[in-house]
Amino acid sequence: MDVTIRAMRSEDAVEIFEIVNQRAFRFWTLSLPYESFDTIKKWLEPQSPRDLHFSAELDGRVVGASALRPFYGRRAHAAEFWIGVHEDYARRGIGTRLLAAMIDTADNWLNIKRIEMTVFTDNIGALALYSNFGFEIEGTHKAATFREGAFVDAHCMARLR
Amino acid sequence: MDVTIRAMRSEDAVEIFEIVNQRAFRFWTLSLPYESFDTIKKWLEPQSPRDLHFSAELDGRVVGASALRPFYGRRAHAAEFWIGVHEDYARRGIGTRLLAAMIDTADNWLNIKRIEMTVFTDNIGALALYSNFGFEIEGTHKAATFREGAFVDAHCMARLR
Repeated sequence: MDVTIRAMRSEDAVEIFEIVNQRAFRFWTLSLPYESFDTIKKWLEPQSPRDLHFSAELDGRVVGASALRPFYGRRAHAAEFWIGVHEDYARRGIGTRLLAAMIDTADNWLNIKRIEMTVFTDNIGALALYSNFGFEIEGTHKAATFREGAFVDAHCMARLR
Repeated sequence: MDVTIRAMRSEDAVEIFEIVNQRAFRFWTLSLPYESFDTIKKWLEPQSPRDLHFSAELDGRVVGASALRPFYGRRAHAAEFWIGVHEDYARRGIGTRLLAAMIDTADNWLNIKRIEMTVFTDNIGALALYSNFGFEIEGTHKAATFREGAFVDAHCMARLR
């Protein structure tokens, strides 16, 4: 399997819209059902000049995507990110490749000191992935989010260098 | 001392600008020096129809301000807030009055389940105030923010009902 990580292109939005609408994406993120294509397309646009978006391409198909979002002002040394992988291509290391690309960019090109995110406490796969890259749990937010009819807790995690 | 808590008015921006520019506000928040009046005035406008802004008035003068910001979507049960009190009127219970007004609104009128915020770990006064209202520390973000030339840690706190 030869996955290429590259800059996201505007035409990738069609395939990323498909990923975002999968239960696997919604279940582990803050995504809502029935979001319009235009909403997702707009969400995929950089919200700041510092934002970087990545696509994972396999055999000419976009099978994963991610974004690294540095903060600004007094948090300019820190960044957050999201990752999504197509259900049919899960557990093949695509998330690892996307995360590695973001961390390389943050560490070696943007001089980011702190990368942070929140993860649902039952997302064992993501917790293992982030731990492998040196992320540590800093705390646990109770009832952080509503998901499939119930509140769910989330760990806040960070990687410092 | 007879402090009145009331809805913020657009003309309060002049006095709140003064508070925001004090070291006491900047030191404990993410505020920057040299922010323009227009920037602060815009920041004081509701960013969502759900946002509520409060002013604390004493003898016709605005001596404190706060905002309660409910989230949306799958975090609509949660809210965050900020509070600022004029340095000359600190330690007189004005922060307590503003926080009480926000919590009453969140609990009894908005049905908010979770109120959250981050606090610098050395902000002993705020930690005591929030603890009094049932907020608990959920974790500690390392090097969360840059302040007076050094990185500073922040606790994430929340109050659930």
